[in-house]
Amino acid sequence: MRILLYRGDGQIEPWARDFAAALPHAETVAWEEGASTPWGPYDYAVLWSPCPALLDTLAQVKAVFLMGAGVDAILKFGDLLPPVPLIRLGDAGMAEQMAEYVAHAVLRYYRRFDEHEQQARQGIWRPLPPRDKSAFTVGVLGMGKLGMPVLRTLRQLGFPVRGWSRTPKDAPGVDCYAGMAALDDFLAGTRVLVSMLPLTPQTNNLLDRARLARLPQGAYLINVARGAQVAEPDLLALIRAGHLAGATLDVFRNEPLPAPHPFWGEPRISITPHIAALTIREEAVRQIAAKIALLERGETVADLVDRNRGY
Amino acid sequence: MRILLYRGDGQIEPWARDFAAALPHAETVAWEEGASTPWGPYDYAVLWSPCPALLDTLAQVKAVFLMGAGVDAILKFGDLLPPVPLIRLGDAGMAEQMAEYVAHAVLRYYRRFDEHEQQARQGIWRPLPPRDKSAFTVGVLGMGKLGMPVLRTLRQLGFPVRGWSRTPKDAPGVDCYAGMAALDDFLAGTRVLVSMLPLTPQTNNLLDRARLARLPQGAYLINVARGAQVAEPDLLALIRAGHLAGATLDVFRNEPLPAPHPFWGEPRISITPHIAALTIREEAVRQIAAKIALLERGETVADLVDRNRGY
Ligand SMILES: NC(=O)c1ccc[n+]([C@@H]2O[C@H](COP(=O)([O-])OP(=O)(O)OC[C@H]3O[C@@H](n4cnc5c(N)ncnc54)[C@H](OP(=O)(O)O)[C@@H]3O)[C@@H](O)[C@H]2O)c1
Ligand SMILES: NC(=O)c1ccc[n+]([C@@H]2O[C@H](COP(=O)([O-])OP(=O)(O)OC[C@H]3O[C@@H](n4cnc5c(N)ncnc54)[C@H](OP(=O)(O)O)[C@@H]3O)[C@@H](O)[C@H]2O)c1
Repeated sequence: MRILLYRGDGQIEPWARDFAAALPHAETVAWEEGASTPWGPYDYAVLWSPCPALLDTLAQVKAVFLMGAGVDAILKFGDLLPPVPLIRLGDAGMAEQMAEYVAHAVLRYYRRFDEHEQQARQGIWRPLPPRDKSAFTVGVLGMGKLGMPVLRTLRQLGFPVRGWSRTPKDAPGVDCYAGMAALDDFLAGTRVLVSMLPLTPQTNNLLDRARLARLPQGAYLINVARGAQVAEPDLLALIRAGHLAGATLDVFRNEPLPAPHPFWGEPRISITPHIAALTIREEAVRQIAAKIALLERGETVADLVDRNRGY
Repeated sequence: MRILLYRGDGQIEPWARDFAAALPHAETVAWEEGASTPWGPYDYAVLWSPCPALLDTLAQVKAVFLMGAGVDAILKFGDLLPPVPLIRLGDAGMAEQMAEYVAHAVLRYYRRFDEHEQQARQGIWRPLPPRDKSAFTVGVLGMGKLGMPVLRTLRQLGFPVRGWSRTPKDAPGVDCYAGMAALDDFLAGTRVLVSMLPLTPQTNNLLDRARLARLPQGAYLINVARGAQVAEPDLLALIRAGHLAGATLDVFRNEPLPAPHPFWGEPRISITPHIAALTIREEAVRQIAAKIALLERGETVADLVDRNRGY
């Protein structure tokens, strides 16, 4: 069995090592652009941010695995992709990281730690009035592999929570909303909006001026999904106008966030460099190797991407 | 029945209103220093930061209630206090606030949000290497009304946790240490030290240079108990020497933290103005009124202060 490994960032060495250990009977080929490694055929491909040149070598693979949870970057190749199962990572340790990230950002806003920090930097000792937790509703867009555990953690911390998905859901302790028709109602009762949606044609620019303006005065945005879901100038305008109180952004339309970008200088916007949930290599290799074993036995595997749906 | 209400900060009005509603058959007397309200005798006193003049009026009370969880400020009056039951607030909503505060600070250090924030302020996009959670042990000093729920929340967030108390404990998922003899071992394996101890002669200056130096290189301190437990110049020296990576402090030896104090200017020290867990008035009044009813029926009540122990 031959497995092609490729990462757009070139960091392929440790992956090759781990795959060789996990699948000792397979030949793993760590291809790098410009390298003279023999081209296909391969049985499987394990990819992250592939270059178009690579796709020609995939004609005979039985399945393509991704080293992450997001699939927007690979689906944009459309018909250049071989017509075989495309398999994303499941949770693989990312849900816990997402829960940490979102819990931290929500607590920071709820407890006004951002404002206390700014006071402290000026040497000001002034306790700020506490907020009403029962009115500090967190609304999570996307109730999938990552959204659901985040909702659970927020509920354990005592926040009222609501979730929004494409198909109707039923989750204990979560007010569930589904579909476009329910979005405005969902937003109107959300004090902290968290996006955990995949990027698809439907979610691209979803959070534009009209939708962000549906959030109540003083609301916050946390985006840990994909930057292109947010109309960045609209977000900035609503923060500067005082309608939104702040945003914590891990993802941006262009990454790295370009050097001259108005987000950098805006104190009410907290920026992290796409670190909300990192792929844990050991966990990912273990998961992909197990799925290859299932496919070799003719069985089905979880986390298949639906190309029509876009996620 | 006559109940004396007093707060050192003068904010007695809303308390008087809530007590009148909770105990309609009692006469509640909101005494203010210098006011001409008739003096004793009273059946009960409900106090926060009493002045010595007030203590003379308490000769005939059946019990003294405190509007908070900490008792160090009242116990310093010693024999001036009447020899009657002294009753602190139980949890009364403070444990949840403590868990929020500590979870936020621990996540901030674990996920390096403080460092990412500093980078972002300089316009730097640079993902920092993640940390090993299994080695990011949080050690909580004090496993009482507030410490126990904090340990539970940290464990739910996936952190290895250990606790230290005076008498031996057994708590699921918590490495338990008890007594002075175990303190050095406890500290040596603690990456984030959280104090939730009462201030007593035994805990005064407990965290001095020698004890803080037992923490591993790169450790953090979170103090939400009482400032006098920490030797402040020692803490500062260990941070400046690079042994400790930072501290989040809600309490200080002198509060408000004086204007010229080296903590203000130290970026590795985060300061909040004693807001980790506020008394929730409605909850406190409900709890105290219920205990008065129990005492009137000759029953026992929880949260009695042990004057010998000091908490
Ligand atoms: N910042 C980071 O570090 C990082 C790390 C990993 C992943 N991510 C991002 O997180 C995203 C979510 O991951 P996941 O594993 O949770 O995905 P998932 O399991 O596929 O869940 C996606 C959720 O979004 C909902 N959804 C999709 N399109 C929708 C639409 N048009 N309207 C309403 N709801 C819609 C889905 O609804 P149904 O349940 O009805 O299908 C589902 O609940 C990834 O796509 C990726 O972009 C970011
Ligand atoms: N910053 C804020 O906003 C804020 C708000 C409320 C309270 N506080 C502070 O938090 C403190 C803790 O409150 P709590 O309600 O959790 O108190 P608690 O229920 O009385 O618990 C105190 C804990 O500390 C342990 N302890 C006491 N002396 C000790 C010693 N010498 N060595 C080892 N362990 C010792 C006790 O051990 P045993 O279990 O063996 O007795 C117990 O586990 C309060 O006293 C107050 O100062 C701060």
